[in-house]
Amino acid sequence: MKYYIAIDLGASKTRIAVCSKDSIIKKIVEATPKHGDEYAIAKFIWESTRKSFSEYIEDIVAVGVASIGPLDIKRGVAVNPTNLPFKEIKLLEPLTKYFNTKVVVANDAMAAAWGEKHYGLGKPFRNLVYLTLSTGVGAGVIVDGHLLIGKEGNAHEVGHIIVDFNSELECGCGGRGHWEAFAGGINIPRVARWIAVKHGISSDLFDFLLKHPEASAKDVFEYYRRGDPLGVLVVDLYVKASRAGIASIINIYDPEILLIGGGVFLNNQDILFEKIVNGLENDIVTSMPIIKPTGFGDDAGLYGALALAVNPPRELLEEQGV
Amino acid sequence: MKYYIAIDLGASKTRIAVCSKDSIIKKIVEATPKHGDEYAIAKFIWESTRKSFSEYIEDIVAVGVASIGPLDIKRGVAVNPTNLPFKEIKLLEPLTKYFNTKVVVANDAMAAAWGEKHYGLGKPFRNLVYLTLSTGVGAGVIVDGHLLIGKEGNAHEVGHIIVDFNSELECGCGGRGHWEAFAGGINIPRVARWIAVKHGISSDLFDFLLKHPEASAKDVFEYYRRGDPLGVLVVDLYVKASRAGIASIINIYDPEILLIGGGVFLNNQDILFEKIVNGLENDIVTSMPIIKPTGFGDDAGLYGALALAVNPPRELLEEQGV
Repeated sequence: MKYYIAIDLGASKTRIAVCSKDSIIKKIVEATPKHGDEYAIAKFIWESTRKSFSEYIEDIVAVGVASIGPLDIKRGVAVNPTNLPFKEIKLLEPLTKYFNTKVVVANDAMAAAWGEKHYGLGKPFRNLVYLTLSTGVGAGVIVDGHLLIGKEGNAHEVGHIIVDFNSELECGCGGRGHWEAFAGGINIPRVARWIAVKHGISSDLFDFLLKHPEASAKDVFEYYRRGDPLGVLVVDLYVKASRAGIASIINIYDPEILLIGGGVFLNNQDILFEKIVNGLENDIVTSMPIIKPTGFGDDAGLYGALALAVNPPRELLEEQGV
Repeated sequence: MKYYIAIDLGASKTRIAVCSKDSIIKKIVEATPKHGDEYAIAKFIWESTRKSFSEYIEDIVAVGVASIGPLDIKRGVAVNPTNLPFKEIKLLEPLTKYFNTKVVVANDAMAAAWGEKHYGLGKPFRNLVYLTLSTGVGAGVIVDGHLLIGKEGNAHEVGHIIVDFNSELECGCGGRGHWEAFAGGINIPRVARWIAVKHGISSDLFDFLLKHPEASAKDVFEYYRRGDPLGVLVVDLYVKASRAGIASIINIYDPEILLIGGGVFLNNQDILFEKIVNGLENDIVTSMPIIKPTGFGDDAGLYGALALAVNPPRELLEEQGV
């Protein structure tokens, strides 16, 4: 039998799965290494796979990698990844050597879109957007059946749509008023501090943030659930930015279906989904697409990686010279 | 010899040209009819062509139409065009009958992008955006060599990116805070009145606007040139919205080159170009594309229509069943 390896390389966790051509057989989830040289992560992936899936290793016919970005898509290298302390993470070249088989590398959200198209709710559609609301805000986009790549593999950096041109709120990229500045999970505690100082709001959440510099988006949503007034303002702003971003996405790409994944969204779907989608049609000039949470939950990246391995997008192969 | 007919159907003017396979031979510019049934415009185009280009009419091998939108791209019909009093303008079917040859219909900005790719500054590139800053704000987009269409032919409605999620300023489409609400030529006098009332500003421009309900973007820019304080505020807002929109476009489509056309921009390039482009890189996460005004001036739509006729995009042919 033929097997495929699917890898979802994230800032905190790396998921690796051995798969048949259409489903996950077994998976492992490990902490992503934070030290070493530009080959450290590829080595770690190879060692983990060999250890956990030794009985399959001889029959692997292709490897797909859904990686954190930004990617140099031609070389298959993650360059200055926002939330990992590496200058470069080499993937395509060392993984091809270790696995001694075809390897395809793509941005994680781009891969997830491809996975939705091949295995998920996106199957019947030629125009599809996969949106991830996670540590960052990103997307993968298929228009007229083509997976969008762009000159450097960034034709879907929707987190950097400017949703508030008056805002002084700085994004991780250095820009201002970007969607991700308001809604990237990593920025949410910072947004809370910013609002509290700007509007002189004191609340339990603010006290907590003062005592816990390492606080996360999860904490902010917990305080929101308890009715904390600062938490409410932060989530309101999250929703406002995400409504604007999603309306813009629909006007820009004209999809038939928009699927939403990513940890921040999936963990707070009960709060966020209705609020974001309600009344969205007022800002749409094309007809409304279907909007749904991904059916894959945390495995959206893995199914994306599997789709890359089994049905590599032609455009990507041209870029990676496979 | 083989000839092509290129048609640029605009809200106020219709341009018709007879062309060789790579350039315009002769053109006419006429006022677009404002009365009649859904066939009135097709009839007018046929009659005008027959009258002005009678010596070529037997040798026409294809017709390209760059039309105002929104288009029903499958039927080749303009549906409820924003600035013309028709419910539908039928193009594909009647023009095919009159000309008795292949006809290809596309949105004007989409066509212009295709024209830039085949005849213009976009020739060497596989990733290109043509942006029109005119009565409305629109674009045509080529990613990885594919002209983006979308489920209804709207995968480029960049005028409806929300650039200010706090704004109450209403767009022609009914949404709020859209780029086009601030920068669509048709909206500019309304923006001026809105700012004047909101901030209690009196100026010569405001007096002029009170006396001239029919005032246009041209008037507002004229007052700006004279240093009118209200004119300055309107143009500042135009620039702010357009910078945000253009930064978002670059992040979203990752183009190699961005070409700007459209009457409002072309007539005020001296004011607008530097202001819009300066410092743009601060908001860009991919590398900066080349940004230039179109080399075609007012003929961008005609070259687009010619490119449709000579090299119809495969994706569009599939939609129009040619």
